[in-house]
Order: sequence, then structure tokens, then C-alpha cells
Amino acid sequence: MAGNDVKVLGAWPSPYVMRPRIALNIKSVAYDFLEEQFGAKSELLLKSNPVYKKIPVLIHDGKPICESLIIVQYIDEVWNSGPSILPSDPYDRAIARFWATYIDDKWFPAMRGIAAAQGEDAQKAAMEPVVEGLVLLEGAFKNCSKGKKFFGGDKIGYLDIALGCFLGWMRVTEKLNNVKLLDEAKTPGLYKWAEDFCADSSVKDVMPSTDKLAEAAKVILAKIRAQASS
Amino acid sequence: MAGNDVKVLGAWPSPYVMRPRIALNIKSVAYDFLEEQFGAKSELLLKSNPVYKKIPVLIHDGKPICESLIIVQYIDEVWNSGPSILPSDPYDRAIARFWATYIDDKWFPAMRGIAAAQGEDAQKAAMEPVVEGLVLLEGAFKNCSKGKKFFGGDKIGYLDIALGCFLGWMRVTEKLNNVKLLDEAKTPGLYKWAEDFCADSSVKDVMPSTDKLAEAAKVILAKIRAQASS
Repeated sequence: MAGNDVKVLGAWPSPYVMRPRIALNIKSVAYDFLEEQFGAKSELLLKSNPVYKKIPVLIHDGKPICESLIIVQYIDEVWNSGPSILPSDPYDRAIARFWATYIDDKWFPAMRGIAAAQGEDAQKAAMEPVVEGLVLLEGAFKNCSKGKKFFGGDKIGYLDIALGCFLGWMRVTEKLNNVKLLDEAKTPGLYKWAEDFCADSSVKDVMPSTDKLAEAAKVILAKIRAQASS
Repeated sequence: MAGNDVKVLGAWPSPYVMRPRIALNIKSVAYDFLEEQFGAKSELLLKSNPVYKKIPVLIHDGKPICESLIIVQYIDEVWNSGPSILPSDPYDRAIARFWATYIDDKWFPAMRGIAAAQGEDAQKAAMEPVVEGLVLLEGAFKNCSKGKKFFGGDKIGYLDIALGCFLGWMRVTEKLNNVKLLDEAKTPGLYKWAEDFCADSSVKDVMPSTDKLAEAAKVILAKIRAQASS
């Protein structure tokens, strides 16, 4: 039986930090949320993740686990106090892992490119792979959800968490850059899924409002620019 | 019970392709090895991996699974006709996944930088992160192997496969660039592990000799350069 001394080192605006928090909520596991400050790294973080020095870190009974998707799998394997997060079938599990990796390696880096793009043409070009990626993910949603609400079926699963954690930042990107990414006509499945995901009891308390996140984005961007020019 | 219509789309010099082949050998699963030609992509590959169009792809009973580490996990979950590839303990599993991701995201890209470096100083600088990475991995080896032969204990496991598949290319890098990467004094555990890994019955038939791989490397590099200058 797993012990329940559970800490998450993180910061509320981080999409990656949202992943273990949602997974712990799904399993009804209480945890201490130890907030890291932007631009500083605590001793505990440096000790717990010496290779990357990045959040999130899950500390379970004193043992650190790093990398958000690895943490989610760990939580799923350790606690059975809630529904399974990964699909039970090995093929479905491989498909969920494939798309989760695609989101982290290709789709989200492309979305970050929109904020960095200077000028209308550059912004349009930067949006293309993001929208194309959403069309691919719409196809994955149809195949995985089999007509149900989530990638994981009736309940939020691994791929829901992997993609859903970026919804707040997608909406901030839409707002601050005055663009439309998640389109009801082009990706109707994902459009509805996004609403269901954000309304879920395991998600709604950790998903910040777009306005709050947009304010944080402005502060973070200003700090990054100040550091870059100093 | 899993069906046994198993194909691997790949190419013998690819370290990533070696991963599913070793995993299938561990499970004593026979498979058809369908060789892709360098610079061309078969219809079957394009159909099986439309997102990345990359090898390896495992096709099991007609269903394609992509991404080498995801394939290895799939093989471990589907077949119990051999020892477990991932550790049984969730924490050990998380640690193995962490280092496997580190190898793919950080260490191997750094090693590729050695061949690209022009001049002695650049080569020396390019070697630094590779050797530092090996020192980190030596520490991981000590923790994971607990005095046994492999990261996975008595038998080759997930992390052995993740790192071991690059041994051939590491030796080619040492040979073609006249450098030393895996050092018996600095990383004695890994030095001995590399010998044991390459001698293992699941590995030795899929691990090419350094000479054969060096010849292939020269041909591949010449083709890449010809494409780049045409």
C-alpha cells in the first residue's frame, strides 16, 4: 500500500504542473502544493530534479519523480483509489502515449511559436502547424473516445490530461494574439471536449481562468524580456 | 492471447529500430523484418506512420505502433513469453522512463553534435555534454543495477535497451572522430555493462559490428551531403 506523504513542487500557471495535480485529483490523493517562484529555484527543487531543475516534481514518501507524463503514469500505477488513467488495453495505451508525446514534442512547441511571431504574415505561418495539429488530434479524439466525452472514454484519461493542460495557454494565446485556434466548425469534437474537460471535477480547481493566466503571461513575458536585455 | 503476425519496419543501422528487435528477442517473438531503404519511404511506412513517416514501426496483427520506446513498452505489455522488460516497481519504472527520456532528448542529440563539430576546439566542446551525460548515466547505473550486470538487474531491461542501442553509433563516433567517450576509468560500471550488453543473446544478432556500421555511416553521410548540396 502506497504511503500518502505526497508533495507537488510546481507553480499554478504551468501546464505541466497541472498534469500531476489532475492525476492526483482523479485518484482522490491529498497533497501539499509547494509553489516555486518564477525565476528562482528552491533548494528542494534543485535537490529533487538535479538533471533538469524543472517543475513539476512529485515527492512521494521522500522519493522524487520528475517529468510530468512520467509522474502521471507513476500516479496511475501506485494508486487504485480512483479510475485508471491509462487505457487498460496495450494498443490503446500505445496510441495514448503516441499522441501525448506528439503534443509535447510538436504541437505545444508550435503553439509557443505564435506568441514569438512578429508581424501578421509570420503569425499566420506560425498558426498553420498548430491548427493542422488540432485537426490531427480531432482524428485521434474520434478514434480514442469512440463517441464518448473524453479521449479516455467516460472519464478523463492520460491523453485528456496531456492535451487538456494546455487549454488555458491556448486561450491566452488566442486572446493576446487575437487569433482563433480551436474552431467549432473545423474541430467540433475537440471544441466540445475542451468544455467538458475544463468543467470536470478533477480539473476545474486547477485550471486557471483565461484572464488570470493572461495577467500571469504578461508578467512572465516582461521578466523574460528584462532578463534578455540586461 | 496476442496474435503473432508481427512485422518490424526498419533499417539495420538505426539505433531506434534495434529497440523493438531486442524487445521481441527478449520475448522470443518471431517477426518479419521489412527493411526500408535510406532516402526512400515505402507505402506501408507512410500509411503506418503518417505523422512522422519514421522507422521503426511495429505492425502487430495489422495494427501499427510507432515510436521506439512506446513500442518497447507495448511489447512488454502484450507478451509474457519472456522476462519483464520494465521494472515491476512503479518507482523503479519511473526512474527507468526518466533516464530513457534523458537519453533520447539530451544525450544522443549531444553525441550527434560531435560528428558535426568542425575543428579540434569545437569537437572538444561537443564532447563535453556527452561525457558529462555518461557520468550521470554511470550514477543511474549504480542505483538501478544494484550491483548486478544490467540496469534491469540480472536481465536486460528497458533502460538497457534505451541506452544500449546507441553503443554501435558511439563506437563509430569514437572511431571516425578519433575520440574516447566511454572511459574505463571514469565510468567503469558502464564500460563493463557495454560489453555484457553487446554479448547478450537478445542483442548480439542485431548489434552491427563497428566496422560495418562505420561503412554505413560513411555512405549515409555522403548521401546527406549530396542532398544538401544539390
